Amino acid sequence: MGAHDLDASTDAGTGGRVASDHPGVIDLFAVLAYGEISAFYRLAEDAQMAPDLRGKVAFASMAAAEMDHFETLETALTERGHEIFAVMDPFVRALDNYHASTTPSTWLESLVKAYVGDGIAADFYREIGHSLPADVAEIVEDVLSQTGHSEFVVLEVKAAVEASTRAKDRLMLWGRRLLGEAITQAQFVLAQREDLTDLVISASGDLNGVVALFDGMQAKHAERMAILGLV
Amino acid sequence: MGAHDLDASTDAGTGGRVASDHPGVIDLFAVLAYGEISAFYRLAEDAQMAPDLRGKVAFASMAAAEMDHFETLETALTERGHEIFAVMDPFVRALDNYHASTTPSTWLESLVKAYVGDGIAADFYREIGHSLPADVAEIVEDVLSQTGHSEFVVLEVKAAVEASTRAKDRLMLWGRRLLGEAITQAQFVLAQREDLTDLVISASGDLNGVVALFDGMQAKHAERMAILGLV
Repeated sequence: MGAHDLDASTDAGTGGRVASDHPGVIDLFAVLAYGEISAFYRLAEDAQMAPDLRGKVAFASMAAAEMDHFETLETALTERGHEIFAVMDPFVRALDNYHASTTPSTWLESLVKAYVGDGIAADFYREIGHSLPADVAEIVEDVLSQTGHSEFVVLEVKAAVEASTRAKDRLMLWGRRLLGEAITQAQFVLAQREDLTDLVISASGDLNGVVALFDGMQAKHAERMAILGLV
Repeated sequence: MGAHDLDASTDAGTGGRVASDHPGVIDLFAVLAYGEISAFYRLAEDAQMAPDLRGKVAFASMAAAEMDHFETLETALTERGHEIFAVMDPFVRALDNYHASTTPSTWLESLVKAYVGDGIAADFYREIGHSLPADVAEIVEDVLSQTGHSEFVVLEVKAAVEASTRAKDRLMLWGRRLLGEAITQAQFVLAQREDLTDLVISASGDLNGVVALFDGMQAKHAERMAILGLV
């Protein structure tokens, strides 16, 4: 982020001052859109480890919800005069890297990734979304909405964790790795995309706000792990 | 179908006399439901052969539409007091066999299968659906509704077929195989499921009607192949 204009920080604390036509908004929609596509295909692939049809159906439903969100973003980008495939392109590498470095090796790891990984991304986008103009915030909130299948994940993981300390230990490490990789890739994206970085800084108030944003994500991650019995 | 009660044929031509609580209705919803799940996972897997992100997105959208249909069927089965996983179970083998025996080896074969294979199944269910009570027919029609992505498939296949006679010859054989395998598996299912067979015979009028049903499917298959330039 070295090259970034730090003068933006003089606007500290004025959340909401980002304009609807800030170029970072297009980046934000684009990274969200590719995030939906890549999550779709990861869920579909990870579902192969499901021990039964119930697990396969749960993952397929979650994957389908990602595509609903994708269509919302496609409409939003089209309305703003952008072609979705062109604007998604710069984000393919970081998101593919995230998934490549966090490929689950068991069904339980898949479940934790679906729940915790999605949650980390949602925290990040939601925090930024709060400070964006209403039309943009509404779209962000819409595509982050829960799909109602997380209850299935919570029950499966809790049962496994209660039954085996070894499973619990492994999944705690796994959760930590998911957070680390997500933050690594988020920083990589921000270092490459000046418009998006400016948007994030503006939405957070200043650079301190960005630090607080990442700290807040860590706290929420811990809460989510606790819900799974991983504490 | 030898063991089936042929007296049903005496009710020939009275389409619509099937009762809403005919046990075959549950079988029909169940085979449709497992069809959606298996199509979802086939599309997701076949999309790995897509040459670009556009193809992956088109297949993901088609797969997501299958899950919308699945949810409609789940609701319909629940309302009728049936647990979807229990009633889908008898159809897993035939549908898995269909997909295993028609695994595409190229992206073009995947496209033709998505278009032609889906179409064959839809013809079969739609023909039966016409003769069912309104509440059942409506659900069948709803889950067979097009997803709007077939235009993408048509354009891709037509372009490839116009550019290469060899591609065209291969895809014509491929289309014939899809139809053959679909009919083989449909007959296997009917031989196993007496309630469903009774429903199909009742909906078709009589056994001659079932023969006409399969003939009609063949004609519609040829039309669909022609749309793809495979004629």
